[in-house]
Amino acid sequence: MPETVFEVDVDADIDEQPDPIVNRWHPDVPPAASVEPGETFRVEQLDWTGNQVHNDDSANDIRDMRLDPNHHLSGPIEVKGAEPGDVLVVDILDLGPFPDNEWGFTGIFDLENGGGFLTDHFPEARKVIWDFDGVYASSRHIDDVRFPGLAHPGIIGTAPSHELLDEWNEREQALINRGPEAETGVNHETREDQPPLALPPEPNEVLLGDMSEDEVEDAAEKAARTIPPRENAGNCDIKNLSRGSRVYIPVFVEGANFIVGDLHFSQGDGEITFCGAIEMAGFLDLQVDLIKNGVERMGTDYAMFKPGYQDPHFSEYIVFEGYSVDEDGTQHYKNANVGLRRACLDAIDYLTNFGYTREQGYFLLSTLPVESRIAGIVDLPNTCVTVSVPQEAFDIDIDPDTLTDEAGVADRGSVAKTS
Amino acid sequence: MPETVFEVDVDADIDEQPDPIVNRWHPDVPPAASVEPGETFRVEQLDWTGNQVHNDDSANDIRDMRLDPNHHLSGPIEVKGAEPGDVLVVDILDLGPFPDNEWGFTGIFDLENGGGFLTDHFPEARKVIWDFDGVYASSRHIDDVRFPGLAHPGIIGTAPSHELLDEWNEREQALINRGPEAETGVNHETREDQPPLALPPEPNEVLLGDMSEDEVEDAAEKAARTIPPRENAGNCDIKNLSRGSRVYIPVFVEGANFIVGDLHFSQGDGEITFCGAIEMAGFLDLQVDLIKNGVERMGTDYAMFKPGYQDPHFSEYIVFEGYSVDEDGTQHYKNANVGLRRACLDAIDYLTNFGYTREQGYFLLSTLPVESRIAGIVDLPNTCVTVSVPQEAFDIDIDPDTLTDEAGVADRGSVAKTS
Amino acid sequence: MPETVFEVDVDADIDEQPDPIVNRWHPDVPPAASVEPGETFRVEQLDWTGNQVHNDDSANDIRDMRLDPNHHLSGPIEVKGAEPGDVLVVDILDLGPFPDNEWGFTGIFDLENGGGFLTDHFPEARKVIWDFDGVYASSRHIDDVRFPGLAHPGIIGTAPSHELLDEWNEREQALINRGPEAETGVNHETREDQPPLALPPEPNEVLLGDMSEDEVEDAAEKAARTIPPRENAGNCDIKNLSRGSRVYIPVFVEGANFIVGDLHFSQGDGEITFCGAIEMAGFLDLQVDLIKNGVERMGTDYAMFKPGYQDPHFSEYIVFEGYSVDEDGTQHYKNANVGLRRACLDAIDYLTNFGYTREQGYFLLSTLPVESRIAGIVDLPNTCVTVSVPQEAFDIDIDPDTLTDEAGVADRGSVAKTS
Amino acid sequence: MPETVFEVDVDADIDEQPDPIVNRWHPDVPPAASVEPGETFRVEQLDWTGNQVHNDDSANDIRDMRLDPNHHLSGPIEVKGAEPGDVLVVDILDLGPFPDNEWGFTGIFDLENGGGFLTDHFPEARKVIWDFDGVYASSRHIDDVRFPGLAHPGIIGTAPSHELLDEWNEREQALINRGPEAETGVNHETREDQPPLALPPEPNEVLLGDMSEDEVEDAAEKAARTIPPRENAGNCDIKNLSRGSRVYIPVFVEGANFIVGDLHFSQGDGEITFCGAIEMAGFLDLQVDLIKNGVERMGTDYAMFKPGYQDPHFSEYIVFEGYSVDEDGTQHYKNANVGLRRACLDAIDYLTNFGYTREQGYFLLSTLPVESRIAGIVDLPNTCVTVSVPQEAFDIDIDPDTLTDEAGVADRGSVAKTS
Repeated sequence: MPETVFEVDVDADIDEQPDPIVNRWHPDVPPAASVEPGETFRVEQLDWTGNQVHNDDSANDIRDMRLDPNHHLSGPIEVKGAEPGDVLVVDILDLGPFPDNEWGFTGIFDLENGGGFLTDHFPEARKVIWDFDGVYASSRHIDDVRFPGLAHPGIIGTAPSHELLDEWNEREQALINRGPEAETGVNHETREDQPPLALPPEPNEVLLGDMSEDEVEDAAEKAARTIPPRENAGNCDIKNLSRGSRVYIPVFVEGANFIVGDLHFSQGDGEITFCGAIEMAGFLDLQVDLIKNGVERMGTDYAMFKPGYQDPHFSEYIVFEGYSVDEDGTQHYKNANVGLRRACLDAIDYLTNFGYTREQGYFLLSTLPVESRIAGIVDLPNTCVTVSVPQEAFDIDIDPDTLTDEAGVADRGSVAKTS
Repeated sequence: MPETVFEVDVDADIDEQPDPIVNRWHPDVPPAASVEPGETFRVEQLDWTGNQVHNDDSANDIRDMRLDPNHHLSGPIEVKGAEPGDVLVVDILDLGPFPDNEWGFTGIFDLENGGGFLTDHFPEARKVIWDFDGVYASSRHIDDVRFPGLAHPGIIGTAPSHELLDEWNEREQALINRGPEAETGVNHETREDQPPLALPPEPNEVLLGDMSEDEVEDAAEKAARTIPPRENAGNCDIKNLSRGSRVYIPVFVEGANFIVGDLHFSQGDGEITFCGAIEMAGFLDLQVDLIKNGVERMGTDYAMFKPGYQDPHFSEYIVFEGYSVDEDGTQHYKNANVGLRRACLDAIDYLTNFGYTREQGYFLLSTLPVESRIAGIVDLPNTCVTVSVPQEAFDIDIDPDTLTDEAGVADRGSVAKTS
Repeated sequence: MPETVFEVDVDADIDEQPDPIVNRWHPDVPPAASVEPGETFRVEQLDWTGNQVHNDDSANDIRDMRLDPNHHLSGPIEVKGAEPGDVLVVDILDLGPFPDNEWGFTGIFDLENGGGFLTDHFPEARKVIWDFDGVYASSRHIDDVRFPGLAHPGIIGTAPSHELLDEWNEREQALINRGPEAETGVNHETREDQPPLALPPEPNEVLLGDMSEDEVEDAAEKAARTIPPRENAGNCDIKNLSRGSRVYIPVFVEGANFIVGDLHFSQGDGEITFCGAIEMAGFLDLQVDLIKNGVERMGTDYAMFKPGYQDPHFSEYIVFEGYSVDEDGTQHYKNANVGLRRACLDAIDYLTNFGYTREQGYFLLSTLPVESRIAGIVDLPNTCVTVSVPQEAFDIDIDPDTLTDEAGVADRGSVAKTS
Repeated sequence: MPETVFEVDVDADIDEQPDPIVNRWHPDVPPAASVEPGETFRVEQLDWTGNQVHNDDSANDIRDMRLDPNHHLSGPIEVKGAEPGDVLVVDILDLGPFPDNEWGFTGIFDLENGGGFLTDHFPEARKVIWDFDGVYASSRHIDDVRFPGLAHPGIIGTAPSHELLDEWNEREQALINRGPEAETGVNHETREDQPPLALPPEPNEVLLGDMSEDEVEDAAEKAARTIPPRENAGNCDIKNLSRGSRVYIPVFVEGANFIVGDLHFSQGDGEITFCGAIEMAGFLDLQVDLIKNGVERMGTDYAMFKPGYQDPHFSEYIVFEGYSVDEDGTQHYKNANVGLRRACLDAIDYLTNFGYTREQGYFLLSTLPVESRIAGIVDLPNTCVTVSVPQEAFDIDIDPDTLTDEAGVADRGSVAKTS
């Protein structure tokens, strides 16, 4: 086991953690640890909500979630010798839950508190608890499903420079200023609510590691939220960033000062319920290296990666298709988001044939290793998106060729609700 | 070899084909052939442009393409006993080019004549010719690339009912009426042109099979263009609809009257250059069956499928990431299209490190079996899209870990231009 | 379609073929065709028995098979510039049955006429006919099985030199001289028959292409039978030598003079019934090249290959284990053959739980893409061999976890017998 | 983390372990732990040699290995309710090295002390130490190799009944009595030594768990060695018995009393060096269940399993072929062992082209996830065996198409020798 350079305590309050949690991007957060290129080390992590969710059968904790302090992340880790313009190379050697904490959760956020990709269809807070048995996940809230996870960190990112941070804040504020019409792929006339378009800096419950109190006050006004992925990678939520993969991330400050967290035991492409993967606390074993002047040499704007060799491989999928026509029948212009939504809704409807509730279906799409592909992007006005559901994740037969009318009467358990 | 129920002649003009070509969706096109459930049969097909593109080194034919008559399709094929509400089951048993016509093409359409996904970056007509050597494709216009194709029909769809056709026309006209602002993910201030938002019925060069001339005149006014996929499946351009896959499509008229065409030897997810797969003429061997009352029983709105077992499987990918910030730095709201665009642009830039021109890179993303996934759709305001390029499709080493400065000086040939 | 350099006629007698068939290895058989390095070309081939088996429901043709004239092969093909010591590189670009001849057969040879791996258990001639529907094979003689083939040539080999041919004859005759005890892994006391240990040159029904009659008389006395694989590759029966693979074979004579044939639509590892793959006539598209002085440069004694990317990939296997204790309870010493036999017998027994006869099981192991691995070879005295049966080749559920007592009462059809 | 029912201490002597080690099969060894069907639990294990090998650069420990006390195993574990005739179902949920002990070893045994599959070629004791970095293994003794392990227990087996134990002893003694000629596939005239044909009960250093001293004395005379796999599964050394797989093993005594151990971080098919996988100490998380009367219901003689979904998947292999002609040129009769030997020798020779010593090659074949298949077993007298080496396990390019004469001059380190 490599040396642990950042520790957490899943039973302690956030302000009593062994190492200081960070929940914003800012160039001046001092490193919590320092490593050499070539070094292998362990970073422990809280779940992204910082212990706000409990292993029980009530969704109250999801409903009452304080969102401002998320994500609860570990770092920054300084990589000695890293300079702006370098590329940080990170090998994800291993990861997993803590040995005595082998469970995870998935939530549907209430429409009033976060929402999700299909929030119009699933407006109320719900929760599912997962148990881990080695490589397998199963849930007491969804019967007859057991599958090998594709564990990965949802977040890994380098610290932004001041210039980059300013750019983020400017462009995101500009989006907010454009107003509701900037949200595309919805029928604004019938839409009941208006979600936030972006999350501007939020001084409430800001955590900036070991930064001094004075500095925090200033920094909190511009430190970027960790929800979106950006040029520093960050919250990419890429399910294939799994064991054995290698990530390349641009460096913007001396030392790279990268931060990690938001561990997932498994996630479907899209992570559609928002609190959407199988969220867990745990450890991440990493090895780092540097490509000097890599940004110019590689010539790319964003992070890149090479996947590992051990993603679960299934051979039997059911694939659902969606196009850019929304549920109200409104035609959108080559909108992949609408295509994804329609394919997901079809998949959810299909799973009801086997006794799964629509909420269970929503959870399954968000957590199974579902593949969501942009099949055709040029066939105006309809982009085609496909959502591939692995049959082998189910203990029961969900093949369309053996579908019988009896299947749907089965009881597959129920998800946790609010009280 | 199963019996051929629809023949084409790649050397004959469109109006002298052995069986009548169809290029619009309309309920009243009479079947060109009739098959029984359980039957296996062959359907021949022209390339989607109806022989407009030649195996030469000039992109003039791409530039001068007449778009109104596309796609040139084969059918309708009546399936006896099919009724509205049934689901048509189609097994794709085999497909390929004609034995004496083993080549294909990929085009970049001129900005003024069709355009493509990255048309702002690649505004001029270009062409690449591919040669097929059994399972492999290679091109005299792009050196050091050779890969196994993932052949599939771009189009397979059932005839719409009159009601469904009306619905299509209404919703697509409504989109056109909304005007340029309906196009999202672009900076309208800097955009030079405005592409069509949808393609309304176009009586010019309409082909409705054996429909009588009188009927054609009426039908042409409302027959739907074949560019977008819709409830009848149609032009889905799903690369995984390959040999051995099984498709489930709703039936809207007696006999189902399905139409196929737009054969691809290979395609990347997205088919981003628009004329974008390796386009070819060839044959398709199918077996059909029916699920009576399947639409209600399966409960889904759109087509579904199960992939085959023989898609090429690679283990070494380079994966590029893109988020919803466009090239001008404008922030968009969870826009997967923008994410795909940025990931594609990064991939194209990356390939220039090895001597490929940006145009060659654009072609490669459109034709290699590239995987384009919507990784995270909820991390407002940035959707993360990944574009996975199979390293094994290249004869040269494109791994980031062995990237040297010398690589970029290589000459990898050049694509066909206009004269 | 590449140019055909060797033609066959599945309806003509052997002595009336368009190009002369060859059924022995000999250095002096004159080339039937000549190709350049880099050239792509087609070679047609009879099934290995030279049309002796018919698409009917009687195994009489298997029982009465004349074995002396097998295999019926195509070539030799001269590769210009090839010299002894070079390595011939062959790309298998494509292969398949003839369009109007899309069927194949598998036979169990009678104990008195060829036998097979489990001949003690299956002593009587039997036959199964397969129909090809594109990538899929199914049989009217075995119900509820349909799977994608992994087509490959059973035989591809270069002409031996005189010296090498002498060496073959000497060492094989020495084996024959050692007598029955040279057969290991059987209980000689209880064994009823004694199969031939090797097949010495057999002048009866020898076919040596265009060699003159005078020469044939001499050559027939020493020309080697084509049954075993040897230094020239030959009858390797490697199922993974499939579309897209590349083979490296030593060259022993000027021009390499390679011969191909014994096409298989599919085969399980081991090809255990002997006439054991899904045997077919058809075509093979090849591209050849040379590595000059490759034998010394590569430093290997035997042929090598790189597989293609399109072998069917399954994810659900049932794996049977076998060790070196024979069915009589006799302990053998690290004998992989006995291990394979026991694993096969267990698999056959297991399949009877689902209504398959033991003969059907034997055929299935010989034709499905079964993986047979030598798991452990050092654990004296028991070698462990595993036989992996792909569940997805069956339309019914053969999973041990859902095994019910009712499964076995099903009727899955019956194989063809003798009359 | 499931409850640990069997503990070991890698720093303690064998007679001071927390739970009593067992190293023989005998029906009367009392259970060390007891579990219920459905229960999940952890079993800790020493490496198979019981701490005899050290993490250093000398092979003296391999040379001086005491073989009589191997394997050092954990158990027996009683499964409540298990009866003879049942089938024990074991899910391998997870396994790995101990967190503070992340290394393993591979040895070549001296010809005089154990030997190995290619002992005539590699007669001297050698050792390689491997370091584990998450999913990856690499070695300071073999440069430029780094690959994801396919971890598995080499041994899992149920206790034999007295009757079964007698049968084992009888048949193995009969083999010994047959004498050296029972070893096939070797040239007895030139063979220098004669390895043991089987390992009869050996009272020296016998460990029978908590059995009383009096009982041990009797039991030791007939307790079976753990080297060979047998009807109770035992030392199968199947590399695919990895995370997520499910094993079915016959039960012979009340409680099943199964024993596990011999953990491998990775192994090639065959485990050819004998001490041949990457051997390690570590933990195994299991879940057990019972199929009542399963032996009769399933109808098989030996153990079966279903693999998991997470074996490393590579797409680029180099495949070596071997036939039943030994290195002296002697022809053997359809002998798969000889075929495997020749293919391995060719692979070893091939790897010398890249600077690897032949000893390093031998180690690599034994430890990389190499696939060794019996391709054709019926082509008398030559069985064809293939050995597939994954190219992606190497950091350098070992493709035959890019082989240069310079490659071989590289220095890839050296294995540990004796002093």
